Amino acid sequence: MLPKALSDAIDALGMLPGVGPRTAERYGYYLFKANPKIAEGIAETLSNLHSGVKSCPVTFALIDADEEMSPLYTDPSRDKSTILVVEEPLDIYAIEATKGFKGVYHVLGGALSPIDGITPEQLHIRELTERLERDNVREVIIATNPSVEGESTALLLEKILHESKPTLKITRLARGLPLGVDLSYADQITLSAALENRTSL
Amino acid sequence: MLPKALSDAIDALGMLPGVGPRTAERYGYYLFKANPKIAEGIAETLSNLHSGVKSCPVTFALIDADEEMSPLYTDPSRDKSTILVVEEPLDIYAIEATKGFKGVYHVLGGALSPIDGITPEQLHIRELTERLERDNVREVIIATNPSVEGESTALLLEKILHESKPTLKITRLARGLPLGVDLSYADQITLSAALENRTSL
Repeated sequence: MLPKALSDAIDALGMLPGVGPRTAERYGYYLFKANPKIAEGIAETLSNLHSGVKSCPVTFALIDADEEMSPLYTDPSRDKSTILVVEEPLDIYAIEATKGFKGVYHVLGGALSPIDGITPEQLHIRELTERLERDNVREVIIATNPSVEGESTALLLEKILHESKPTLKITRLARGLPLGVDLSYADQITLSAALENRTSL
Repeated sequence: MLPKALSDAIDALGMLPGVGPRTAERYGYYLFKANPKIAEGIAETLSNLHSGVKSCPVTFALIDADEEMSPLYTDPSRDKSTILVVEEPLDIYAIEATKGFKGVYHVLGGALSPIDGITPEQLHIRELTERLERDNVREVIIATNPSVEGESTALLLEKILHESKPTLKITRLARGLPLGVDLSYADQITLSAALENRTSL
């Protein structure tokens, strides 16, 4: 019933996360009625989305296709002797948003998951151990996700890092209550961690 | 901070209606992490969105670029002697969704609006009057929007149609209470219309 070009666009927009048929229709109608430049702008940026981004060869952070290394690594004001390890590249931007970290990053490229077939060899662990001596690293902060996969990845990393450089300080992000969560809704593991790691006032 | 290709995509997605910076970021991150085919699909359909659609030369409904006339007009099972007049092409799909209309459509291409510089000459009124004799039209249903612009357009249309073909039956969509709206929240004009056009049980 709708012209094919419009119904195709609505179907494609329905692939966005959390967008149902009604919202996709709203987006499609809007883009059709609005200045064609808006639809063209989205089309152009999305077709460049993957080709315009690559991985930093040292930190595996996302960089522009024409960059050599992550500016978060080459920036001389950042402390190369402290590495914060994350699972995915986008995790870096969550940490950066806190403006509280002035070290450098290392992206593992995932977390251990036997079910999904992700083994230690597929993660950028070797590249991390290579940085330990080269950059005279003193501390590695493990910031994997608080999930089963993230936990087992953290345990494995701790073992490998300790074997590679026994003098290395290895830390993890604190566990505790997040802002705004009612005590009665917190899960047991979080609450146990919050109790164990209690801070003095 | 973010790779340019990703932040450009997020900016462009933020132009969608009702999409703020957080949602645009969510869409952008999702499309970046998901199968590149999804982003490519949206890109391709949106770049074809306007070029793949044109106007039917008779009804001004939207048609595929390779069609000659609207299938809603050429369909022999539809009654060409009853024309429902709407402001915008997408209004047709709202009427079609009711499955209650078996006549044909005519799109004005807007409503009278002196502020926006929309005069009667810019609307497809002449093309509508030409259809009256050619298709032996008996009834025109005016379905402009219930707004100031829609109202004045309807009054003008009524005058022109009556002058063109005095025997023509000219009707309008009923005014009344919409489903689910509390009586105390209904505006005065709607309530007056609902009272005036009350139906017997």
